[in-house]
Amino acid sequence: MTRAATKSAVSEPARQRLRLWLRLLRTTRLVEAELRERLRARFDTTLPRFDVMAALYRAEKGLKMSELSRVLLVSNGNVTGIVERLVTEGAVVRVPVSGDRRATLVRLTEKGRDEFAQMAAEHAAWIDELFAVLPEEEVAGMIDLLSRLPRKERAQ
Amino acid sequence: MTRAATKSAVSEPARQRLRLWLRLLRTTRLVEAELRERLRARFDTTLPRFDVMAALYRAEKGLKMSELSRVLLVSNGNVTGIVERLVTEGAVVRVPVSGDRRATLVRLTEKGRDEFAQMAAEHAAWIDELFAVLPEEEVAGMIDLLSRLPRKERAQ
Repeated sequence: MTRAATKSAVSEPARQRLRLWLRLLRTTRLVEAELRERLRARFDTTLPRFDVMAALYRAEKGLKMSELSRVLLVSNGNVTGIVERLVTEGAVVRVPVSGDRRATLVRLTEKGRDEFAQMAAEHAAWIDELFAVLPEEEVAGMIDLLSRLPRKERAQ
Repeated sequence: MTRAATKSAVSEPARQRLRLWLRLLRTTRLVEAELRERLRARFDTTLPRFDVMAALYRAEKGLKMSELSRVLLVSNGNVTGIVERLVTEGAVVRVPVSGDRRATLVRLTEKGRDEFAQMAAEHAAWIDELFAVLPEEEVAGMIDLLSRLPRKERAQ
């Protein structure tokens, strides 16, 4: 029980920071669960698939698979399967990179861009609804504070 | 391109709420990636395994598998595999529920509790370090604001 004794010696600010992290984690997971359920019910799609399409939508010229994985912070394995299905469905194309025979970019097709834009509009409305409980004047401050936390992905 | 036109009609508060959500998501994923890396390097363990042990540590009497999954907000499949490995390692035991022959609780053993307490102490120190960039007087306010967002898991 020495650990319990050690724990009680932890400073109150340290406790509060841990509480904040657990609250951040819990909030994020609950919102994700809500979005996952709505994406399934409304578009018969998954959150990882939505995330992949969102990343590709922002990168109009396309991304290498390694870049896509880094942006998403998820394992390459999942991303590969999702991209393969999107290619089969005609929402994504693989494009050769000039000057690098082994590299290809993945890019949304016009069909993929249209499909994502439709989902993104509803997704934004869901977020607006879920976050409407926050006082409007607090939102910018929260973004600012969160932006001070670690931002960069680790070097791979 | 009607979608693009629609998008520009979205109100600024709605945009800010979406920005906040994306920042929350990004921050949480980056901190998780950092914790994942440290748990691997320091304890040769994974974040889902840490989460399972944390949930069982808080529930001293044990949890049914369904309760454990609900608390974690992850799929039952993953949890089952993690619990099985923990049982094999002697960190978790299955305990019959009196009066319900089909139900069992899973519970940390003394070995499991000791192992988790050690990881939890270091984990708390990592969080303290990562979140030290936030002004101390802002932390309680952030916890309060985040607590207003959806808290309850959906009915399954």
